[in-house]
Amino acid sequence: MALRLSVIESHLTIPSQVNPLDNFSKEKINISLLQAEYYKPKPEITYKFNELIENNPLFDLNGHMEKSREEQRELILRQILYLYPKLYASFDLTDSINRCLCGFAMSGFDLTLSGRYSVHSVLYMETLEFLGTEKHKPIIEKSLMLKEYGSFSMTEISHGSNVAGLETTALYDHSSREFIINSPSPTSAKFWIGGMANTSTMTIVFAQLIIEKKNYGIHAFIIRVRDSNHDPVEGIHIGDCGAKSGLTGIDNGFILFQNLRVPYDALLDRLSKITPEGKYKSSFKNNEKRFGIMLSGLTGGRTGILGSTEVNLRNALTIAIRYGAIRLQFGGEKEKPILTYPTHKYRLMPLLAKCFAARMNFKLIINLYTEAKELIKKDPENLKVSELHGLLSIFKYLNSRYSQDGIQECREACGGHGYSAYSGFSRLRGVNDAHHTWDGDNNVLIQQCSRFLLKNILHSFKGNPIISSYVSFISASKTCITHESLTCPQDLISLLEYRCHYYMNKCMSRLQSQTNPDTKIVWANSQVHHMNNLSISFGELVAAKELLKFANELKVKCQHTGNEVEKIFKLFSLSVLEKDHIGFSDKEHKLIEEKVVEMCDVVATNCVKIIDAIALPDHVLGSVLGYSDGKVYERYMRVVESAPGCYGKPSWIHLIDDMKKAF
Amino acid sequence: MALRLSVIESHLTIPSQVNPLDNFSKEKINISLLQAEYYKPKPEITYKFNELIENNPLFDLNGHMEKSREEQRELILRQILYLYPKLYASFDLTDSINRCLCGFAMSGFDLTLSGRYSVHSVLYMETLEFLGTEKHKPIIEKSLMLKEYGSFSMTEISHGSNVAGLETTALYDHSSREFIINSPSPTSAKFWIGGMANTSTMTIVFAQLIIEKKNYGIHAFIIRVRDSNHDPVEGIHIGDCGAKSGLTGIDNGFILFQNLRVPYDALLDRLSKITPEGKYKSSFKNNEKRFGIMLSGLTGGRTGILGSTEVNLRNALTIAIRYGAIRLQFGGEKEKPILTYPTHKYRLMPLLAKCFAARMNFKLIINLYTEAKELIKKDPENLKVSELHGLLSIFKYLNSRYSQDGIQECREACGGHGYSAYSGFSRLRGVNDAHHTWDGDNNVLIQQCSRFLLKNILHSFKGNPIISSYVSFISASKTCITHESLTCPQDLISLLEYRCHYYMNKCMSRLQSQTNPDTKIVWANSQVHHMNNLSISFGELVAAKELLKFANELKVKCQHTGNEVEKIFKLFSLSVLEKDHIGFSDKEHKLIEEKVVEMCDVVATNCVKIIDAIALPDHVLGSVLGYSDGKVYERYMRVVESAPGCYGKPSWIHLIDDMKKAF
Repeated sequence: MALRLSVIESHLTIPSQVNPLDNFSKEKINISLLQAEYYKPKPEITYKFNELIENNPLFDLNGHMEKSREEQRELILRQILYLYPKLYASFDLTDSINRCLCGFAMSGFDLTLSGRYSVHSVLYMETLEFLGTEKHKPIIEKSLMLKEYGSFSMTEISHGSNVAGLETTALYDHSSREFIINSPSPTSAKFWIGGMANTSTMTIVFAQLIIEKKNYGIHAFIIRVRDSNHDPVEGIHIGDCGAKSGLTGIDNGFILFQNLRVPYDALLDRLSKITPEGKYKSSFKNNEKRFGIMLSGLTGGRTGILGSTEVNLRNALTIAIRYGAIRLQFGGEKEKPILTYPTHKYRLMPLLAKCFAARMNFKLIINLYTEAKELIKKDPENLKVSELHGLLSIFKYLNSRYSQDGIQECREACGGHGYSAYSGFSRLRGVNDAHHTWDGDNNVLIQQCSRFLLKNILHSFKGNPIISSYVSFISASKTCITHESLTCPQDLISLLEYRCHYYMNKCMSRLQSQTNPDTKIVWANSQVHHMNNLSISFGELVAAKELLKFANELKVKCQHTGNEVEKIFKLFSLSVLEKDHIGFSDKEHKLIEEKVVEMCDVVATNCVKIIDAIALPDHVLGSVLGYSDGKVYERYMRVVESAPGCYGKPSWIHLIDDMKKAF
Repeated sequence: MALRLSVIESHLTIPSQVNPLDNFSKEKINISLLQAEYYKPKPEITYKFNELIENNPLFDLNGHMEKSREEQRELILRQILYLYPKLYASFDLTDSINRCLCGFAMSGFDLTLSGRYSVHSVLYMETLEFLGTEKHKPIIEKSLMLKEYGSFSMTEISHGSNVAGLETTALYDHSSREFIINSPSPTSAKFWIGGMANTSTMTIVFAQLIIEKKNYGIHAFIIRVRDSNHDPVEGIHIGDCGAKSGLTGIDNGFILFQNLRVPYDALLDRLSKITPEGKYKSSFKNNEKRFGIMLSGLTGGRTGILGSTEVNLRNALTIAIRYGAIRLQFGGEKEKPILTYPTHKYRLMPLLAKCFAARMNFKLIINLYTEAKELIKKDPENLKVSELHGLLSIFKYLNSRYSQDGIQECREACGGHGYSAYSGFSRLRGVNDAHHTWDGDNNVLIQQCSRFLLKNILHSFKGNPIISSYVSFISASKTCITHESLTCPQDLISLLEYRCHYYMNKCMSRLQSQTNPDTKIVWANSQVHHMNNLSISFGELVAAKELLKFANELKVKCQHTGNEVEKIFKLFSLSVLEKDHIGFSDKEHKLIEEKVVEMCDVVATNCVKIIDAIALPDHVLGSVLGYSDGKVYERYMRVVESAPGCYGKPSWIHLIDDMKKAF
């Protein structure tokens, strides 16, 4: 199609200009160094993925935007079929961390692709690896080669977070050494199962194991759901969950079981077995502990979420910062880029700092997960495992919050054009939104971090040495708030430790002041303003420390680059302190506010360069507002003109005549 | 299609239960009274609209959800053609407030419908009425009968907020007494013009008026854009803006002008004319004032936005509160509704209070607008006009913020099911999102309120009596914060006045402390933490006062009902005070926090009843999670099963075989 604007362009004049992006690239930093360090661990996976999708029409976000649900599902599967063998050939996908990082690389482009891939490669495969035994290895191998495509059937329509309350039953029939799987009520349908509606051949079902009328709690079973014709096997009903708020290309489905008989080997029996005599035998006396390990398959998924939330926010910032640098508005005779206004800097720069913090959270968890992976199986009570779970829980909460709020702010900061689907914001917001509630609802997960902290605090209060070195705030005290201390990295860390300490004290007096004998109620009454704040402040303390460490490591390699990241660390710490009520005086608080604004200004002078270092390439970002060369309007109009029906008349145009005759 | 779940239901048992919604309907209140008063002014318009769409398959939100862009555009036009003559027969649509309220009634169902209707009936029609003269009346009459369909061509691709900087030119040619309209650059395309892509026959174009090489600034012209065949007239290029973040059924388009000649009468010449001798003549010496009045057509649009943001939030709360009451999770042997948890109450109850406040803002503006409508034309410097603009500006900001953040919180509070498109949240979020940046970007509008306040403050500082009675905080002082004062309505108002007073002082010292001779820079440097906070605190003060007045008026009619609303007023005031840093001591702040949690608990005991009073009927709400009878899961599954392809195999199923052969 001839683009009309090009045709009439001779009539129009295009004002020449220097590249306005240069106004926000003032400091010397080593872009390639920052990128290489930021992208660790294993940047090669991201680079490989970005390379694989370049100039490939299968991966054109704008071109495929308005496809129907069915078409999007097809597209994503085609993308997986194209990518998977190439990734398999390049990386060792028997390593679950590699599989997780492939999913993360995909999520920078589109969480839909990543999600559809990860349900199989992370949730399903990891659960098989964690809970299965030798006899399940052939399934793992087939799954790795896509001969089988798996899913993770945990959530039911009326049960999400309270996994222990799931209704699906697996009745052990000793006579045939089979299990009979049933969905006892309409609300027990397994729901939201990614990959179930169309793709899955296998699934892992979480069900109450019942042996001789006794309920042994939730156990995992590997079950074939479709036969060789890809029809549901007898005793299984599968349907499609339908339209969602995003992730349309993931085929979420529901599944019901009706007297489905499966052999004994369906039980993933590493943690608990049924003896040939029909007796239940678990390697854990404590049922809760067994339960905790059974959910370990979620660790990889949650880790991926830390990465995905960060890259969603990073993509949004890439768009908003570049657009803010080229968008002129007001300022007198010569209009000024909106990013020169203090309000705009204040809207975007703290988000850039949060993006760096979110990345540090992801990096830290990848490292902890790598260390703890074998321990989870062998020594689940090991400190490293509980640290991993405590931190992962609060980081999932924080990263999701940062990114959801940040994407919305970035969208609004781009004015009306932020509402165009070609800006990318609504896609980012829509996909990111899933992160709050899948793989563990964030408002429940935050309490898992709180429990971890409380255990550490109580242990220490009893005079014992501190259990986890991350819990560094127990004996913190308040640092003086001055211009100097708010500029000193160590003082900022001390203030963040004081912040945790403040909330710790608040929590302890809250817990102690309640006389209700029901500890569940005492706990519930201690969340708002108390345990929640403690966990958040703890997560942000760890994030800040990691970010400072990152800056210091960079300094060794390149002082300028390290200094820039240190500024971002300072802004993160300050903006975290800015919102809270932790006993600062009015004067102290005003000083913090001033420092935040000052650091927004400082970081903004170089924000395009920072973004250029960490941003994904234009073809992965897929936003008309976010191009790295700053040529926004031309490219925007090209995409608009290329969209279906730009200059055409719609099929319903006869209704206009009806309208004129309405009276 | 036989619904499979119904077929297999005999296999399943449905637990009988009492209606869990009753747990949150404890206080005696008069539901119909509250509804009637809440829905004022003119509840009959909303009732009529709700009645018109009942049992009409044209208005089935879930059924039409996955339609393509073209199909959605058709659907909305069909809806308008169905509704408009019926509304016209029922209400006096020559009255612009009635037209605006019809748009508001539609927005409770779908802002797409409302927006497509309102561009014509509010933005376009009101501008014609405000700026046109006698000779333009025939166009108004034709437009009222849908013989012409209008649009509002202000925004350009590179200019939004800075309307004075628009590029489109209207060159006056005295020889033919015509204007020559041109788009001088690609970035001057009028963009985002609602109704332009497909529907418009006429448009109002805002362009720089040039007479004999002198630029007289922005003026409005009424221009025919399509001929009787509905093709663009010569000299005009029209295209479609393509995919958006929502509002897909609105045909936003762009338009470029290429030496388009239009007669003199195209100029909407009530404020300024060109004499038969070719001389420019304006009734305003001050160009800025003329400019301000020229934008008055936006007043109706912004007023509609106050209503739409409120009803979007109200819809989201209706869903989240009802779902929170029926969703059971954790709590021991017998699971508890999630709404019984303090965290959940704290997430939702302050939003309910904000929803009431947002409604008060809408009511107040409708009243002020009704009073000021004629004054805008005759005496634009009248205090009532500037009060209207000051309040409308901050209310648009506040209501948009409340609703966007509130919808997101409600979605998250519904867990995974909040991500289903059938919950309604993603639709609400997507459409509501436009409100931040259309009809005036909120972050620019907030500064208009700040200017209004500054003018009042400086006037008063010079020893003059206070200009606007709304600006009641200038000599406020801090009320003691005690358990008692935080329970006393008058003391809460005093605290909100003190809050404004605090920010006023902070602003004044900020403005005075800056030595930069460029006032634009001084102003820009005084927004973050200063003028912005002042305007927000001012808007929330007025909202709180209106809400208290509403409660008191209700008390006269029914003490119980008034008391309930007074509790909501208290929660609103407290939760507004909770977040700010305005010099409260640590102890005072903790007291406020405690009171917020306490009031969340108090309001929650009756929140379903409150929602039942103010909620739209189920068929207007269109959410599977929000049914008034609490039968969530059954209805949810019915909608899921009725969606296209629930139990079918997709057309691309052969790809599964390809997948199995990938290696």
